[in-house]
Amino acid sequence: MKTKQKIINWIRQQVKQTKTKGVVFGLSGGLDSAVTAALCFSALGKKKAFALILPCETKKQDLIDARLVVKKLGIIKIKSVDLGPVYKSCLKILPKANQVVRGNLKARLRMLTLYYFANQLNYLVCGTSNKSEMLMGYFTKYGDGAEDIAPLGDLLKSQVKELAKALNIPGKIINKTPTAGLWPAQTDEGELGISYRKLDDILLRLSRKQRQIQPVRLVNKVKSRIKASEHKRQPPKICRI
Amino acid sequence: MKTKQKIINWIRQQVKQTKTKGVVFGLSGGLDSAVTAALCFSALGKKKAFALILPCETKKQDLIDARLVVKKLGIIKIKSVDLGPVYKSCLKILPKANQVVRGNLKARLRMLTLYYFANQLNYLVCGTSNKSEMLMGYFTKYGDGAEDIAPLGDLLKSQVKELAKALNIPGKIINKTPTAGLWPAQTDEGELGISYRKLDDILLRLSRKQRQIQPVRLVNKVKSRIKASEHKRQPPKICRI
Repeated sequence: MKTKQKIINWIRQQVKQTKTKGVVFGLSGGLDSAVTAALCFSALGKKKAFALILPCETKKQDLIDARLVVKKLGIIKIKSVDLGPVYKSCLKILPKANQVVRGNLKARLRMLTLYYFANQLNYLVCGTSNKSEMLMGYFTKYGDGAEDIAPLGDLLKSQVKELAKALNIPGKIINKTPTAGLWPAQTDEGELGISYRKLDDILLRLSRKQRQIQPVRLVNKVKSRIKASEHKRQPPKICRI
Repeated sequence: MKTKQKIINWIRQQVKQTKTKGVVFGLSGGLDSAVTAALCFSALGKKKAFALILPCETKKQDLIDARLVVKKLGIIKIKSVDLGPVYKSCLKILPKANQVVRGNLKARLRMLTLYYFANQLNYLVCGTSNKSEMLMGYFTKYGDGAEDIAPLGDLLKSQVKELAKALNIPGKIINKTPTAGLWPAQTDEGELGISYRKLDDILLRLSRKQRQIQPVRLVNKVKSRIKASEHKRQPPKICRI
């Protein structure tokens, strides 16, 4: 598969150009991180691709799935750090907040843990963001959206799924309901209000600059989300003097 | 002062455009955050500019200075959150790391605290980054470099100092030795290996595309730092398919 080899070469090139020693990535038990893991492995070998499992009030099933990926890919450089105690100590000193705010906090705690290891080891943080969630702004700013490199960043969710098949990711992981896992019963499609199948179809047509894409109401909703989340994909806004 | 009014208008405009209710910023007791506070106040009034004091093994003197700024500006919306316990609970679950890595962790804990409040209140995170430190990459990626808006982002450190005088910031704050405060005895100029006076002079000449700037060795050092830190000012690198 052309895409697969292209990404593998790109990851290798990024590490070389930045004179870093490898990559660290979070392994959640979901599709994107499994694909990222497999690509990093193929690019750098088992000793330079470091998987971190970062539970934070995480469902047991996700941890079982993460372990399945570890076993299937033969990951040897791996560490599990339970962020639960840190998360709790945050809530202890902070005022009460709603579920989304607390979820964002979890995503940011994962980010700083990944960077803690990356900084200490002189590794890059390899993110797992895909194009569908990036364009929809469906990620935590400076949380899971914070990464040095994004190998899947130009692939729609459905394209990541295709790539997963080519990488022999277990079917169980491929067919799992996508979730950011920040609170119980959270699902991507539920929160986005659209299925990835429909969303990716619209995003693909938009990128090809097709006109009169149907259904208009849904297309407009997608367009307005892309626009509203622009700030999440850009550097901070600077006051130009 | 023209610059002052321009930034004040800009802050007001950012809040309006994003339909947010105000700004939250970290108050460290240093120059940049004092200037940021004064500007946010003038732009939004006292009720919509929320100051957070976020000690994390911070020197007592800095907290005294932060309180001085609070008093001088008449800040009324303020909260102090001691991040010490959270920082300690992080170190408990993470392997040992050097001082710089631990310092970056502190900066990222501040970031997630600012965003916790901002997300809950529907406020923007107003950063305190100035142009000198941004260009030199002298900030923690996704730490103090993580912000929604950067009102001082186009001002060199020496220009921030000038602005501080126009804003009646206490002389004690203006003449303080600049430090990120991430470990004892840390100073900006010590770490950068150059004084802000010399650095800003070079940055100014470079921005004017002057040739044959002296001293060549120092200029080359500055240029190479700008280049090496480019990734800290850009969104994550995406593998284009």
